[in-house]
Amino acid sequence: MVEWSSVNRGRENLALVPVIHIIGWFVTALGVLMVVPALVDSLYGNPDWKVFSVSAGVTVFSGLSLLLTTGGARLKLSIRQGFMLTTGIWVCAAVAGSLPLMFSGLGLNFTDAFFETMSGLTTTGSTVLSGLDTAPPGILLWRGLLQWIGGIGFIAVGLAMLPFLQIGGMQLFRLESSERSDKAVPQAGRFAATLLLVYIGLSIVCMIALRFAGMTWLEASVHAMTTLSTGGYSTSDSSVGYFRSGTVEVIITLFMFLGSLPFLLYIRTLQGRGQALVRDEQVRSYIRFVATVILGLAIWLWLFTDLAIIDALRLSAFNVVSIATTTGYASTDYSLWGNLPVVLFFLLTFVGGCTGSTSGGLKAFRFDILGLALKVYLQRLVYPHGAFAVIYNGRTVGGDVFAGVLLFMGLYVITVAVTSVLLAMTGLDLVTAVSGAATAVGNVGPGLGTIIGPAGNFSSLPDTAKWLLSAAMLLGRLEFFTVLALFSPRFWRH
Amino acid sequence: MVEWSSVNRGRENLALVPVIHIIGWFVTALGVLMVVPALVDSLYGNPDWKVFSVSAGVTVFSGLSLLLTTGGARLKLSIRQGFMLTTGIWVCAAVAGSLPLMFSGLGLNFTDAFFETMSGLTTTGSTVLSGLDTAPPGILLWRGLLQWIGGIGFIAVGLAMLPFLQIGGMQLFRLESSERSDKAVPQAGRFAATLLLVYIGLSIVCMIALRFAGMTWLEASVHAMTTLSTGGYSTSDSSVGYFRSGTVEVIITLFMFLGSLPFLLYIRTLQGRGQALVRDEQVRSYIRFVATVILGLAIWLWLFTDLAIIDALRLSAFNVVSIATTTGYASTDYSLWGNLPVVLFFLLTFVGGCTGSTSGGLKAFRFDILGLALKVYLQRLVYPHGAFAVIYNGRTVGGDVFAGVLLFMGLYVITVAVTSVLLAMTGLDLVTAVSGAATAVGNVGPGLGTIIGPAGNFSSLPDTAKWLLSAAMLLGRLEFFTVLALFSPRFWRH
Repeated sequence: MVEWSSVNRGRENLALVPVIHIIGWFVTALGVLMVVPALVDSLYGNPDWKVFSVSAGVTVFSGLSLLLTTGGARLKLSIRQGFMLTTGIWVCAAVAGSLPLMFSGLGLNFTDAFFETMSGLTTTGSTVLSGLDTAPPGILLWRGLLQWIGGIGFIAVGLAMLPFLQIGGMQLFRLESSERSDKAVPQAGRFAATLLLVYIGLSIVCMIALRFAGMTWLEASVHAMTTLSTGGYSTSDSSVGYFRSGTVEVIITLFMFLGSLPFLLYIRTLQGRGQALVRDEQVRSYIRFVATVILGLAIWLWLFTDLAIIDALRLSAFNVVSIATTTGYASTDYSLWGNLPVVLFFLLTFVGGCTGSTSGGLKAFRFDILGLALKVYLQRLVYPHGAFAVIYNGRTVGGDVFAGVLLFMGLYVITVAVTSVLLAMTGLDLVTAVSGAATAVGNVGPGLGTIIGPAGNFSSLPDTAKWLLSAAMLLGRLEFFTVLALFSPRFWRH
Repeated sequence: MVEWSSVNRGRENLALVPVIHIIGWFVTALGVLMVVPALVDSLYGNPDWKVFSVSAGVTVFSGLSLLLTTGGARLKLSIRQGFMLTTGIWVCAAVAGSLPLMFSGLGLNFTDAFFETMSGLTTTGSTVLSGLDTAPPGILLWRGLLQWIGGIGFIAVGLAMLPFLQIGGMQLFRLESSERSDKAVPQAGRFAATLLLVYIGLSIVCMIALRFAGMTWLEASVHAMTTLSTGGYSTSDSSVGYFRSGTVEVIITLFMFLGSLPFLLYIRTLQGRGQALVRDEQVRSYIRFVATVILGLAIWLWLFTDLAIIDALRLSAFNVVSIATTTGYASTDYSLWGNLPVVLFFLLTFVGGCTGSTSGGLKAFRFDILGLALKVYLQRLVYPHGAFAVIYNGRTVGGDVFAGVLLFMGLYVITVAVTSVLLAMTGLDLVTAVSGAATAVGNVGPGLGTIIGPAGNFSSLPDTAKWLLSAAMLLGRLEFFTVLALFSPRFWRH
């Protein structure tokens, strides 16, 4: 976790040096990680192990160059440097991570490889690849790894950076002082280690469960990584539908949902404060919402299609959880179910999971804050001169939180709107443009319509559209401000 | 203007009596108004004058009955009664106003007649009628009158009620004490008279201009009424496109835009404070926004279609202003222009005009407040401990304004979302359901797609969909809270 400097009033130079230094560490680590798919490919006897070895070499070399040329930099970061760091890490990792995809037999150009990697690292899961079922195992594993590290990376940003920077009302979710990094480094280190442990632990449990449900080890490990990270990359063009297994769907439904809950609460549960997870207001309202939608859709499917109630419930649960948690797996082409599911899934694209999880979207707590604003408004109508303390999860909700949530929701919708217009300018139709923008900003994965719908693929889109969508994914993942602030003149002024 | 009682803490009985009394006045007035189309029909020798005479009789009788059975009621209203009154007036007027449509030769059932009348009174302009070109003059005039009185009615609510009730950040737009009703009745009366004078004056100027541009007096008066009220009912199935006249389009573009500006500023201009209109921050940002979109679309049309630059500019201006001001006239089927215009017009459906005008939608000042929230956020990043006074149009923007705008925008989008889901349940496809919900809540008029698009019509929708859309129009027009509060248990509890 990063230590924040209180010196941030434009006094320091525009010191890119420490930022580049840390990025160098990350790039090097990413290069080392490429050894894993190289080993797997050589184990499977696939010649692609060379691709990964070369990519690993290039990436580690680049990373080390960045590290060594910026050696001895202080690691106390200003807010400005924090913004540059998070944006920089995601962009540089997407460039480096796309090397294996470009060098492999898939024959992707840089645009497609960058789109695929950015979609992975932001845990979006939109893909330009087809023929996954016969793709080299290393590539499948690499896509899984990209989502997996993207997921834990976002949890870290959501715990360490966004609350501190008061982004989108996240100040409600500051760590308690005993968990915070500026208290004592050993404590912060232990906290980060516990977080990683939880993430790895849940992934392993998911992988073993999927293995026993009939997947191969490769399929199980890729799906475990892309389930916990609510990413949604699969090992087959037909996504999870390929396995035709109710057990697989139930396991994945469960772990997608676990991936969309606040990971901090898992840590607290491990620390013996198990009531934290049960009592959390965000978790409660999110469960209530998802359960209601699943039940409603299941009843509708049962009434208006040929499905038995149990199948309707399983299909509804899998697909609602897949979209609402911003995972984006498909078990079936739900656009064939009729008009209600299509409209429902379009709207669910915006919802997202809980904050502090791997999910994207608007996130449950912001809807809770909206509900609190309504409650206060109605109270004030009846008692115009009363003062109302608004409490959420034991913390006071002030005007700054309302302003933050307003700003976040506003920027979210405006980003989707502007992206839609730009996508339409590249020639995309209404449904593809709007659902494409929404699925990218929400880090969901599939859009709607015949091109990018759950049965489709992003490969046929124009290059410009792919770059726009990549930018939208990054904006959505880093919650807008961290990226937008870099474009603010005030931010750069001394 | 209504006087507000400070006694509103549940002490008074649920006194419907004064509410019904005032509604009685309005219903009676609406009945008297039906004499106008009756006279016009008899002037044109159309037998429909009988329909309007009978409807007038029934309506005046009903209104007087309400008046007389509630005689002697005090007219000092509590907030609760204010909510019931505004909702009640619109619903009762829609029932009474639909009588001529049901009794006439058009053969509308109650659902269609109510939809058409609610669409008129809320200045939405969605229609179930076709064959307008051969419809009786009285019916055409009646539809125009419904929008015209709906428009002035909404301005009155927006000036007198919403700011007082702090709805959606409207507290920024409270009248100055010299204009407020609780100061001195003669002053309030003079203020209301000036408002009416401005509205009538602008309508007459628009009518005369349209007459000289080639319309008949009937066409000119109907279009003047539905232009100033940003309603959008026309005298032809092809809407304004029927006239094939650039002059007509330019005149209507100008007056739609005038209808979407704050009418209070016209009054201030009349009072010799002409700088009010020029200096108003909402007006400036709205003009900037609309001009940018018009120019952008015109250039796109010029580049990618066969249109000459001047025609591109005229068509762009007319259609952008028509949708952005929530009028909803069509001069051409813009869905044939390609993908960019379709996406653009879908998004413009949400924008709306300025507050205190006849326009619906989210309204310009709420986007301004969003921009202020972003400005404050970026300032705080650079100076974390600074205190920033946020001023808008000379008034301080507090946390309550941010919360109000958040609540309004949230309720707006959620209302569109829920209406879309319900519409999809009646069998409508994605584009029809979502654009239909958006056009109804924003009081715009046309939706998108082949059914309810600018070249289409709402008549083929299922009855349930028509009722849902009617409710959505009312919710949008009365800015949600006035209707939703009636469903809050807390609101009714003593």
